[in-house]
Amino acid sequence: MFFASDNGAPVHPAVFTAMERANAGYALSYGNDAGTQALRDRIRAVFEAPKAEVLLLTTGTAANALALALLTPPWGTTFCHRHAHIAEDECGAPEFFSGGAKLTLIDGPEGKITPNGLAQAIAQTGGSVHVAQRGALSLTNVTEAGTVYTPAELSALTAVARAHGLPVHLDGARFANALAATGTTPAELSWRAGVDVLSLGGTKNGLMGAEAVVLFDPAKAWEGELRRKRAGHLNSKLRFVAAQFETWFEADLWLHLARHANSMATRLATGLAQVPGAEILHPIPANLIFAHLPATTHARAQAAGAVYYRTDETLCRLVTSWSTTEADVDALLAAFRG
Amino acid sequence: MFFASDNGAPVHPAVFTAMERANAGYALSYGNDAGTQALRDRIRAVFEAPKAEVLLLTTGTAANALALALLTPPWGTTFCHRHAHIAEDECGAPEFFSGGAKLTLIDGPEGKITPNGLAQAIAQTGGSVHVAQRGALSLTNVTEAGTVYTPAELSALTAVARAHGLPVHLDGARFANALAATGTTPAELSWRAGVDVLSLGGTKNGLMGAEAVVLFDPAKAWEGELRRKRAGHLNSKLRFVAAQFETWFEADLWLHLARHANSMATRLATGLAQVPGAEILHPIPANLIFAHLPATTHARAQAAGAVYYRTDETLCRLVTSWSTTEADVDALLAAFRG
Amino acid sequence: MFFASDNGAPVHPAVFTAMERANAGYALSYGNDAGTQALRDRIRAVFEAPKAEVLLLTTGTAANALALALLTPPWGTTFCHRHAHIAEDECGAPEFFSGGAKLTLIDGPEGKITPNGLAQAIAQTGGSVHVAQRGALSLTNVTEAGTVYTPAELSALTAVARAHGLPVHLDGARFANALAATGTTPAELSWRAGVDVLSLGGTKNGLMGAEAVVLFDPAKAWEGELRRKRAGHLNSKLRFVAAQFETWFEADLWLHLARHANSMATRLATGLAQVPGAEILHPIPANLIFAHLPATTHARAQAAGAVYYRTDETLCRLVTSWSTTEADVDALLAAFRG
Amino acid sequence: MFFASDNGAPVHPAVFTAMERANAGYALSYGNDAGTQALRDRIRAVFEAPKAEVLLLTTGTAANALALALLTPPWGTTFCHRHAHIAEDECGAPEFFSGGAKLTLIDGPEGKITPNGLAQAIAQTGGSVHVAQRGALSLTNVTEAGTVYTPAELSALTAVARAHGLPVHLDGARFANALAATGTTPAELSWRAGVDVLSLGGTKNGLMGAEAVVLFDPAKAWEGELRRKRAGHLNSKLRFVAAQFETWFEADLWLHLARHANSMATRLATGLAQVPGAEILHPIPANLIFAHLPATTHARAQAAGAVYYRTDETLCRLVTSWSTTEADVDALLAAFRG
Repeated sequence: MFFASDNGAPVHPAVFTAMERANAGYALSYGNDAGTQALRDRIRAVFEAPKAEVLLLTTGTAANALALALLTPPWGTTFCHRHAHIAEDECGAPEFFSGGAKLTLIDGPEGKITPNGLAQAIAQTGGSVHVAQRGALSLTNVTEAGTVYTPAELSALTAVARAHGLPVHLDGARFANALAATGTTPAELSWRAGVDVLSLGGTKNGLMGAEAVVLFDPAKAWEGELRRKRAGHLNSKLRFVAAQFETWFEADLWLHLARHANSMATRLATGLAQVPGAEILHPIPANLIFAHLPATTHARAQAAGAVYYRTDETLCRLVTSWSTTEADVDALLAAFRG
Repeated sequence: MFFASDNGAPVHPAVFTAMERANAGYALSYGNDAGTQALRDRIRAVFEAPKAEVLLLTTGTAANALALALLTPPWGTTFCHRHAHIAEDECGAPEFFSGGAKLTLIDGPEGKITPNGLAQAIAQTGGSVHVAQRGALSLTNVTEAGTVYTPAELSALTAVARAHGLPVHLDGARFANALAATGTTPAELSWRAGVDVLSLGGTKNGLMGAEAVVLFDPAKAWEGELRRKRAGHLNSKLRFVAAQFETWFEADLWLHLARHANSMATRLATGLAQVPGAEILHPIPANLIFAHLPATTHARAQAAGAVYYRTDETLCRLVTSWSTTEADVDALLAAFRG
Repeated sequence: MFFASDNGAPVHPAVFTAMERANAGYALSYGNDAGTQALRDRIRAVFEAPKAEVLLLTTGTAANALALALLTPPWGTTFCHRHAHIAEDECGAPEFFSGGAKLTLIDGPEGKITPNGLAQAIAQTGGSVHVAQRGALSLTNVTEAGTVYTPAELSALTAVARAHGLPVHLDGARFANALAATGTTPAELSWRAGVDVLSLGGTKNGLMGAEAVVLFDPAKAWEGELRRKRAGHLNSKLRFVAAQFETWFEADLWLHLARHANSMATRLATGLAQVPGAEILHPIPANLIFAHLPATTHARAQAAGAVYYRTDETLCRLVTSWSTTEADVDALLAAFRG
Repeated sequence: MFFASDNGAPVHPAVFTAMERANAGYALSYGNDAGTQALRDRIRAVFEAPKAEVLLLTTGTAANALALALLTPPWGTTFCHRHAHIAEDECGAPEFFSGGAKLTLIDGPEGKITPNGLAQAIAQTGGSVHVAQRGALSLTNVTEAGTVYTPAELSALTAVARAHGLPVHLDGARFANALAATGTTPAELSWRAGVDVLSLGGTKNGLMGAEAVVLFDPAKAWEGELRRKRAGHLNSKLRFVAAQFETWFEADLWLHLARHANSMATRLATGLAQVPGAEILHPIPANLIFAHLPATTHARAQAAGAVYYRTDETLCRLVTSWSTTEADVDALLAAFRG
């Protein structure tokens, strides 16, 4: 009954197979191996983006902070939701990588920024030499509230950014779950919706530690390589990061895993509706649930061995993953029901 | 015939076994798992340092830069050999992590700093507000020239640093090879010789991507954790990094692998002495060889499929690893001899 | 009819006299002259703080950013009012000097933070390695809204900070105006109220370009000197900055100038109450007025040559200075009245 | 008998007159005043550079560090002489402003870099992602050794930089002295010789605290303004910095002052040749002299009240300024001769 995070799930078995396959003999290090090159082509194909460049890393925080440093100068500010991961959960990594750029925090319901909210925030920024200049827009999909932007919603936001000449970053730590939730293609949920740089996360969806910065415009690829090296994120045996992604894309494994995680959340949410005193905060299109439950309900579930995070007496976050089983969900619900 | 780098070698098979073992079920992320905790205790035991704290990362550049940022303020300078990895091969990572600290480059024969050279460099630094202040001493063992500092040599250098109140960092990307070369204990080659912070490298010696910053004085451990997170180096599924190290220490695997790599270099150096025109630059206690060979000799070997780095027409670097076989060495020598 | 900023006022004539006096012959540069040393003693006496250390600079932005860098680590966050100068008017200087520390923006009426607001903001910060850690509290007096904290109000806020172990910075760009407004002593409005580091501004109150960072706890004085040099703020002919301050303190000139500026604002506010359609936003204890006036009123005044900043159609900021005359005020009021 | 530094000289009286003239009434702050605008035009005329942009500051360290940050990215390295001011006397300001860029130190006789030395240093830099990338060339004229580059020498060096696509910075803390020494025009000694950005120093030549970054290519002017503000170097009452420069250029005052300082150094050097045991290190075209003198000679001069810096037992630096008199020189020589 582990619902603390999709980061706590085991690695999918296919990943080991793929890494062992990649272990055949010697290979040039630092991404100069054939597997890393092949993966770039694979990602180009998956995203229908033949000019995209790809930087592999092992953490999502590094991917986000590196992407933002490419898009916002030190004297700029990145527009993001008040509860974005880059704002709340990265110990200032974006500030560190960018050399001190700011974040302009925007409120919005259900973890989402609205075009109006963005337009207002932009209007209050920039201009004279005394203030932070307008930098990038950073969106997150799946959001930190577990909700999902549709391509149309993304496009409405990126259009506002575009109208002010601002580039757009998408934190896709759970990009596969967003794809599964929206039934769209990778292109539709990224560059076709106006995204310039994507942090594509594999770790929360079955991989061991594999993230990619996908630059749909390759102009800053070399700067990105230098920033990655300089941040200590150019892993020498990069073939094993590439191998994780390669198997992830094979036969749409990534989508299968994400769909499963999402469906387990749906099952859990459906069951929660029957739990006395339960109140679910947002729609549940993906694999995150925020819900209030009576303190006694929490106590009972945790006594029964359920693991998940509580924000306060009643509010909790429940996360499903590729490895969550129906039995896990049902056991948790049984514990909640008492 | 791959002698380009120990980074290009495959991962030792035991590493996969260990990672698959670590994959049993769910675990708290970000190092809050039992395996990561157990590894800290293991490293304390291996180094006879019951108070040491350990920060796991996946690259040596990150380990070095993080360690130095803990020891040298932004207005300080780190003393190191002119050809240290931190000076020549990390694209400014130490400057990035430290917020702009300098490196004072010290010349010295065979990749080593001498106590006199260090004392002179220190004497020319610090004092007034106009100059960079004295920061850490950073040594490398095995050195970039393939030579090895003995505990006595380390102690002589760290004594100079200590006399000026300077902390000491050791870049141990090939620490196991240095242990194997000197026949000393981990403690003797680190804190007992005056080292405060060690970058302990596993990746060049059979692991997939596993490095550790070992803080013999735990006072800066929390700052280290914050700096690691902020740099995007707190991997979520850290149990798999821990598992790599755990199997490395098991039954002294790390030492067996390092001894093997070193012995293959010895074999190669011995054979090189018979190659017409060959000139070996330094003693070969570990697994790196720098040698001049006639250009025609290089051409012949490379035509035969040998892979290694050449600095110019004649100078090359040959690196052996845990997986180098006697047959590999002999084939290279045969190619050199023509 | 210049009410745009106290920065636009001329320099008080005594300043030139003092600088010419300081120009007698040669003097050691970089603050090693007798005048700079004497000023330190003068500031100690003025503030009844015999151990205080003083760093002279020429801009308030530098003073603030340097002070905060001494108090908040790169992974920390400084708590300040949403409209603090450090947040809105320094183009990210605090982020630059600190190496990327954050600002946590706190709302509060009339430009002031409340103890409750501060306590809530602190409670939502710090803890795990994933979030920004608690750094300094930064207050501003006179506030950006033109209001003034009393010693009791400051003490209530600094007590909250102290309870969490946080150091306190005070942006005193208009410290003299705050002293004049509250009728308190420099000590009462700074360290006795819990302030650790003060940015003491002279430029807005008659000086040419003279600001001081006053460290009531001298422990970080040397680090402050290094940070000042490193930021290019150690002026070589520092005796002329010291001379400005010296004449400012002479016979309480600073207080006389500030009282005059404040009284001109009072006169202006009193007159504004008679202007049709005028609405003054806050109390006017010092030398800043924020008021709504009909757009036609603005048009008339500006046509008559009045210079001041408008935020939108009706809202304006009017600033008086040491050199504002009653005739200036009356002329502006006449223009407003039409 | 003050020969410690041209920074220790008094301010030229005309500067006070100019500043008092600039003090007539109110003026917009932060460089939006008429005087600052007029100075830009003046500098364009003086340098025959109608498109140049100008950033005023009050210290040379800030001017240098800001200029370099515009020319070298954080992952770049600036090529400079081993004893350049930016390398030895700015406490890491270039590293701070640039976000951690490196300096590649080049040896060369008499304080000068040679084209060969530069070409070699460039050849050893850049290329792979592992190393610092090639950034700017930074030259100093008058050099730190007191020697002077001719336009031809500058052109030979900047041609090497240009051939590698590197921009060129000139530290002109004593630019006027270099003009006086070479008898060339400002254009000939800057952009016509291949300089892209000039740090133009006034403080060492009679001004109170006035330095300018002159951007011959205006493309980075706005970035420069943002970096200046962000570094706390946008002085609010900038009209007084402009006024210093304005009077400096009036009737070629700057050149008269520099010629005088240089001629005093010539007189001193000539006299030194008669002092027993004196050994002058370099040619003396400008206002700096490095010389060995017997320790007893130093003791005698210092007992007589001479003020200057000694590097060791015998080596000293003697600096003349606009205010050095023949009597000062003769008195020093008399003291040396005993």
